[in-house]
Amino acid sequence: MSGFPSSNGRLFGVGLGPGDPDLVTIKATKIIAAVPVVAYFAKKGARGKARAILDRWVTDTCLELPLLYPLTTETHFCDPAYVKELRAFYTKAAAAIATHLLAGRDVALACEGDPLFYGSFIHLYVRLKDRFRVEIVPGVTGMSGCWSAAKTPMVWGDDVLSVLPGTLGHAALVRHLGAANAAVVIKIGANLAKIRAAVTEAGRLSTAIYVEHGTSETETIIPLDIKTGDHAPYFSSILIPGQGRRP
Amino acid sequence: MSGFPSSNGRLFGVGLGPGDPDLVTIKATKIIAAVPVVAYFAKKGARGKARAILDRWVTDTCLELPLLYPLTTETHFCDPAYVKELRAFYTKAAAAIATHLLAGRDVALACEGDPLFYGSFIHLYVRLKDRFRVEIVPGVTGMSGCWSAAKTPMVWGDDVLSVLPGTLGHAALVRHLGAANAAVVIKIGANLAKIRAAVTEAGRLSTAIYVEHGTSETETIIPLDIKTGDHAPYFSSILIPGQGRRP
Repeated sequence: MSGFPSSNGRLFGVGLGPGDPDLVTIKATKIIAAVPVVAYFAKKGARGKARAILDRWVTDTCLELPLLYPLTTETHFCDPAYVKELRAFYTKAAAAIATHLLAGRDVALACEGDPLFYGSFIHLYVRLKDRFRVEIVPGVTGMSGCWSAAKTPMVWGDDVLSVLPGTLGHAALVRHLGAANAAVVIKIGANLAKIRAAVTEAGRLSTAIYVEHGTSETETIIPLDIKTGDHAPYFSSILIPGQGRRP
Repeated sequence: MSGFPSSNGRLFGVGLGPGDPDLVTIKATKIIAAVPVVAYFAKKGARGKARAILDRWVTDTCLELPLLYPLTTETHFCDPAYVKELRAFYTKAAAAIATHLLAGRDVALACEGDPLFYGSFIHLYVRLKDRFRVEIVPGVTGMSGCWSAAKTPMVWGDDVLSVLPGTLGHAALVRHLGAANAAVVIKIGANLAKIRAAVTEAGRLSTAIYVEHGTSETETIIPLDIKTGDHAPYFSSILIPGQGRRP
């Protein structure tokens, strides 16, 4: 017994994987083909990566519900006005989905990567999970897509892997990079210069790999120490592989 | 130009995901349906989880190449005789695959989870990558399967996630659990008592979740503090979610 009215629709949090439409799971394609409503996040004025992946899988009869971010998520997170605007956006997006669920329509919220791994899905999930049945379909993470594209054995044996948002401060980055056997730095964007300095200070520059647009046609994979300039896309990442046990 | 003889077959490292056959990617199913040889790891005397997932996707005409571990991977890793036996096994398995590749047959080595994330695939990849063309297809990791089954938002905003093998010593576990916002402990098995003590000492017991056989029909998801006994399957895991930013 779920305790939720059975006449309500179900919410599916569906991971779409790192970018290549063929890296979507069978389960995700079945759900996207079956539901009457598919929602996805995008920035205002842009089609968005999730919608691009969906192209191959969404049906003609499906109602699309784009959830348009008011601003980039990269900057200004410490600005109270931005936080307030973002909170209003999530509340409005949750309400738009709830309208369909209350009308008995299942909704798939399709997300890049894996829904519960740094996903915007989480902000809607916490607003809806006590009112509606929710099912979550995991996806291939962006980082798995990156290290597979780079053909880099990432962690072996007893390696500790740390995933580090590039938005952390310099000292925290150096500390975590020094403590882990392997690391992935995500959310690069305007943080690149700070991250490069921290990787260097932690003595990890010689093995660090920079990946931009992993698994897409514009993919770039190069050693971090030859990456020039201090700018990178927000969804680029830096891989520092472990050494593992090598029997 | 790859530099490898084009008459040789290609090796595909194919991730099969956490257990549910529908959590395999479209790309993985296409490769498994197309190659003449599918290899997979299993323990002697057991069919193995990879083979169980393959059931739905492998064709009748495909040659199967089971790679049978001489012993469990859980114990005795510090025993030099065991390391020697394991090394001989990997060398023999790589040779068996190379025979097909040299005869011009493509081989898919199908692996649970993601091939380059703590995967046995790595041990064959390092032995074959300089002789043959290799392509890697990422998969949904076991940990993504577990936190999705548990419907647990794992990492948000600036959370640091650490992945910790349960084979680490008590002090190292406590130190890493204290430093990260979120943690996943993998490779539980006979290490459960030590891990539970470390999670408690790090003050993380109240939010820790124990997951056994995630995404399978025998799935168990309970708070760690009510998990009784000191035994668990090797492929169970413990999730300690982050708190993230919550606009």
